[in-house]
Amino acid sequence: MSDLTREKLNQAAAIVAQSEADVWLTFVRETSGIADPCLPFLMEGGLTWQSALLVSKTGKKVVVAGNYDLDGLEKSGDWDETIGYVQGIREPLVDALEELIPVSVASPKIAVNFSENDDKCDGLTYGMFRLLESYLARTRFAGALISAEPIIRALRGRKTATELAAMRGAIVETDRLFAEIAERAKPGITERQLADFVHAQMEVRGLGFAWEQEGNPIVNCGPDSAVGHSAPSSLALAPGHILHIDLGVVQNGYASDLQRCWFVGSEIPEAVSRAHAAVLGAIEAGFAALRPGVSGWEVDAAARSFLVAAGYPEYLHALGHQVGRVAHDGGGLLGPCWARYGETPYWPIEAGQVYTLELGVAVEGHGYWSLEDMVVVTETGAEWLSTPQREAWTLPV
Amino acid sequence: MSDLTREKLNQAAAIVAQSEADVWLTFVRETSGIADPCLPFLMEGGLTWQSALLVSKTGKKVVVAGNYDLDGLEKSGDWDETIGYVQGIREPLVDALEELIPVSVASPKIAVNFSENDDKCDGLTYGMFRLLESYLARTRFAGALISAEPIIRALRGRKTATELAAMRGAIVETDRLFAEIAERAKPGITERQLADFVHAQMEVRGLGFAWEQEGNPIVNCGPDSAVGHSAPSSLALAPGHILHIDLGVVQNGYASDLQRCWFVGSEIPEAVSRAHAAVLGAIEAGFAALRPGVSGWEVDAAARSFLVAAGYPEYLHALGHQVGRVAHDGGGLLGPCWARYGETPYWPIEAGQVYTLELGVAVEGHGYWSLEDMVVVTETGAEWLSTPQREAWTLPV
Repeated sequence: MSDLTREKLNQAAAIVAQSEADVWLTFVRETSGIADPCLPFLMEGGLTWQSALLVSKTGKKVVVAGNYDLDGLEKSGDWDETIGYVQGIREPLVDALEELIPVSVASPKIAVNFSENDDKCDGLTYGMFRLLESYLARTRFAGALISAEPIIRALRGRKTATELAAMRGAIVETDRLFAEIAERAKPGITERQLADFVHAQMEVRGLGFAWEQEGNPIVNCGPDSAVGHSAPSSLALAPGHILHIDLGVVQNGYASDLQRCWFVGSEIPEAVSRAHAAVLGAIEAGFAALRPGVSGWEVDAAARSFLVAAGYPEYLHALGHQVGRVAHDGGGLLGPCWARYGETPYWPIEAGQVYTLELGVAVEGHGYWSLEDMVVVTETGAEWLSTPQREAWTLPV
Repeated sequence: MSDLTREKLNQAAAIVAQSEADVWLTFVRETSGIADPCLPFLMEGGLTWQSALLVSKTGKKVVVAGNYDLDGLEKSGDWDETIGYVQGIREPLVDALEELIPVSVASPKIAVNFSENDDKCDGLTYGMFRLLESYLARTRFAGALISAEPIIRALRGRKTATELAAMRGAIVETDRLFAEIAERAKPGITERQLADFVHAQMEVRGLGFAWEQEGNPIVNCGPDSAVGHSAPSSLALAPGHILHIDLGVVQNGYASDLQRCWFVGSEIPEAVSRAHAAVLGAIEAGFAALRPGVSGWEVDAAARSFLVAAGYPEYLHALGHQVGRVAHDGGGLLGPCWARYGETPYWPIEAGQVYTLELGVAVEGHGYWSLEDMVVVTETGAEWLSTPQREAWTLPV
């Protein structure tokens, strides 16, 4: 992982150089508890005492940390300077800022990790923000704190070749699990048993979870299963059911997030094949609208209006989210302009970003037909990373 | 774990009733990324969209969460009311507060999770704090936010019988691992190999890590090993070395954190036995000073001055921290009044709290002799949870 960390850290320096900030400051403590989502892009491992990771406009990388945390940071070779302390961080931190930001800068800007819109840009806790403000009071950096949101979303969003390769690998493993599920899924098997089977296979192959294990995979057998983020239940698969799986794994530090559906029985009812066609068509409508420069809500609207025109109710979530180190990787969203999404549906789409395209419909008496695929934005449009499920698959009775 | 969650949730209601807050509000989103350390005391599993967990002064427990997250919360039976939403949390959240806080309350106080002093009370990110402030603007709750630090440190600190039993279990497992290490540790074995052995044994027994796996256990072979939070190296154990291990496991959701030392060779040098006596004596001096009502810095000072009087330099950390769900469990600290510890060394010690007592000294030419034990504060003093290492142990050459 070391090369990847260096690759992202250098990308970060290039992004800071283009930003309005003089320094990007990640301020953390006890990262085994609350880990700023930016940390894995800056270093491997964790930090215990209050620590500041600084990337300056000029490309200089400096870290200030407790003396017991310095060893690993020094050995990484990634930092131009590593500064230790014992009693308090204030003085060495202010000194480091003094050195990184020339006195000639009239109104210094220090970007820190907070955002109303994007949880992945919001790793700074309020207590730590207050501490930082108190440290900078009565220095020339008082009032200098701005949001690092634009820096972080560029860094997370613009995938490097190494990151894309890792995600392709995670997708291959997910497809393999889907094939194994299809072999095993027979009437009588419960949601819980299917999930346990997937967990066992993932452990054998050393795969991580793209979101919490408890609800990963999501397994829905038939019309009585709860749709959402809840844990698999004791409901058993039966003829006439739709089996719906939402699964995301992590391999080499990067995630997949895919949904597949099967009908239990050889004769697919008209209502199910109609649902499949509508869902697939809506996803393809979203795919067709996806290209650099458009806003996420426009892509969502393309899929949403296709589905509504096909006679189905709107889905109550976004069409797609970015994927990276985790399934929900933050940044711009392919979503409707609802309050809870903040500004994220308005952020322009960029080449190199990886999105899911996902939606589903309820089919009365059968269950929930929902599909999800992954795409990468190219200079002119988008490319599938996963292979969409073009047919309504069946499982033997 | 369900009974324990209920036990702590009820304890929380009792603590809120005694506090100056009308409501304790835990405000989270995408907890698979940044999980407020309070969450495991309120519920099992995670939450995806913006969610508010409310515990009122009158003991009422209400949760407002995205519609896909409601199912598990309802099923838990722990919440008097579960309120879902699709587009935005503002309206249902303000409505819930309106219901929980009578209009007769002239200046309402809503405790939220931020703290400069204690990372375990600081789970609210700055972006989420700003969102919350914007939701409460132009309501009668504008300006009502206060720190929940006193609530959270009481809740985490005052261990129930179930929590203490779980920690005793974790200590038994840790002692077992120490015994296995002693059998395996022969000259030639590296720090890395010892750590890998411990990891393998922990996996077999289903034990978790009380802090990040990379530096858990800390293994130091001899005088050239880096003391601190760094990962085990390729240094090999040799005759005349001190072997020092710092290990913490998690069992049934609760942690241990213990240090043990061995001298490699049958003849313990005078310098090593003198170091052992000084370290053990200092820890016992701390133990003797520990009782409800005194401040943490006084306990630290008892141990620190014993060590200095014995002719050794001060240790560059705190004598002890609280232990609970993780090794560094927050709350009051048995530490010196250094800036980086904030107010935590001043907080009064309470019965039911669990602390480590830990310190070490460098022995020239041999290594680092450091011990750590765990104690619970009683009504009149303290009780050992672990059995202190009273002898300087040896390993065969």
